[in-house]
Amino acid sequence: MLFNTLLLASTASATCLHGLSMFKRAEGEGVKVGTFGYGSLNGPFNWATLAVENEACKAGANQSPINIDASVTVAAEKPKLDIPKVEEVEFENLGTTIEVLANGTTSFAGADFRLVQFHMHTPSEHHVNGEYYPLEVHMVHQAVADETQLAVIALMFQVSAGESTSIIKSLSASLPAVSTPGTKIAIPGGIDFTDVLAKIESSDILQYTGSLTTPPCAEGVTFLIVKDALDISVADFNSIKSIIKFNARYIQNTLGAVNMLEVGNLAGTAQALQLPIVEKPVAVEAILTKGHTFTVTELNGLPTEIAAVVVKRRSPKYT
Amino acid sequence: MLFNTLLLASTASATCLHGLSMFKRAEGEGVKVGTFGYGSLNGPFNWATLAVENEACKAGANQSPINIDASVTVAAEKPKLDIPKVEEVEFENLGTTIEVLANGTTSFAGADFRLVQFHMHTPSEHHVNGEYYPLEVHMVHQAVADETQLAVIALMFQVSAGESTSIIKSLSASLPAVSTPGTKIAIPGGIDFTDVLAKIESSDILQYTGSLTTPPCAEGVTFLIVKDALDISVADFNSIKSIIKFNARYIQNTLGAVNMLEVGNLAGTAQALQLPIVEKPVAVEAILTKGHTFTVTELNGLPTEIAAVVVKRRSPKYT
Repeated sequence: MLFNTLLLASTASATCLHGLSMFKRAEGEGVKVGTFGYGSLNGPFNWATLAVENEACKAGANQSPINIDASVTVAAEKPKLDIPKVEEVEFENLGTTIEVLANGTTSFAGADFRLVQFHMHTPSEHHVNGEYYPLEVHMVHQAVADETQLAVIALMFQVSAGESTSIIKSLSASLPAVSTPGTKIAIPGGIDFTDVLAKIESSDILQYTGSLTTPPCAEGVTFLIVKDALDISVADFNSIKSIIKFNARYIQNTLGAVNMLEVGNLAGTAQALQLPIVEKPVAVEAILTKGHTFTVTELNGLPTEIAAVVVKRRSPKYT
Repeated sequence: MLFNTLLLASTASATCLHGLSMFKRAEGEGVKVGTFGYGSLNGPFNWATLAVENEACKAGANQSPINIDASVTVAAEKPKLDIPKVEEVEFENLGTTIEVLANGTTSFAGADFRLVQFHMHTPSEHHVNGEYYPLEVHMVHQAVADETQLAVIALMFQVSAGESTSIIKSLSASLPAVSTPGTKIAIPGGIDFTDVLAKIESSDILQYTGSLTTPPCAEGVTFLIVKDALDISVADFNSIKSIIKFNARYIQNTLGAVNMLEVGNLAGTAQALQLPIVEKPVAVEAILTKGHTFTVTELNGLPTEIAAVVVKRRSPKYT
């Protein structure tokens, strides 16, 4: 038997910015699959090695995704989405995600944003109060006035024994056609965003300024996290997971704090970042007496054994 | 209104070794919850800071979990499990995982191992050919002849529209009782391992030597990965995820290669670890001629755009 060797080298580059007009491919060009990935050497620990413009992945102090806890504030207003009915939309497998090219206009905080695409991460990249979700959808927008200003609406999905919500249902029949990186298909009738629009109305929306979760990890991206999860059916979830396999960047440090790769670099040294002591004010309805007992119902951060409970009574004259 | 401050400091330590006799608590002692976690500063990037004995988390070159690909070999034999029927077993919430204390004897590779406990990770820690699973169960064993020798049977679970397999079904009614870190409950009738034993018989078992996936990340741990997934129902998966929230360490480097924290530390520098060029032998049935075409059906590693295909024909005199 003859043996031959195929030597495969890569030159293409694709990011979450794919589909944005400044990165838009020429008409007729094929789907470009990403050179980065989620393994050990092509994965998020090493993204800064893949290209010089990926420096923020290693050095940035306002990186995404993060854990959405009480420190992240509710958006002052809801984004208003206007997505016109179209005859068809393109659904692509970029290797690093599967993505639908979309059109629409979203108004938020006095500015108009153009909806460019939405793509998927499994498991979720953001956590909500420490909990992950099996799927997260990123609806990527560019400001109309300044295309470099990006806003991402992030949707969480929980597996359900029932049917998928409309955004997933609209594309589920097309999943087999995009099972291989580089493939694409047109989805006739486009995407039904009805359930997404309803969830944006009913759910809290958490807002923070972070980064692209993929190379080049550029910062200054507005994230609007829809806190309440949408439903995805078992069949659709398993189908999407079998195509994507895994594409979640690890949780980043709290906003403004040192990059996680620096946390790892300093770990175990004299300069290591230490855990803060958890201190939480507790409202007490009754007058404090000897023998008074407390029940801890919530902790800031992950659970820990209680070694000491120190009760500081505020002087009544200040209350 | 009066305000009081509860100052919570932690001293306890709990690891995946919890339940092993050398770490076993005195009779009557409560459930000890872990001080480590999966957040930014108590999480896997900073475990080496939490205790000096956690050094391997940062420095180890044979760390778990890993991606199980074609380089991991099938175990030469199946582990033989003998789990006696018991009246009840204890089910505990350790904060870092939920765990069932178990008894049993497993024979593997000419040695006897004692089954000490099994606990859960969501999402899965290991990936199989790049794909994660929503749940991974670790059945932790100690060698009878040498208690420091550990073996872990890892089970993967896929969400199913039907019922959970027997191991999950046995504990699902007890989940609400262990929803809070530090709680425990006795499960009457113990755990039904029927479906686990059947899956071990029917599936490939992949074997490698790695580490504990939690502090102190000690190496020399035998992993037996049951490749084919077991079923978990939507309700049981969502219930377990709402309790654990997230407890998967990030994927480690290939066995024997530098620790991922060092990969991250070197990223973007002149010493950065570069991606290997993918080179894969391909069997060709026909005689090679000018104009011969190849179809790439498989790639080592994540997909990448093909920029060049170099065909090296092996000289016929060596075939």
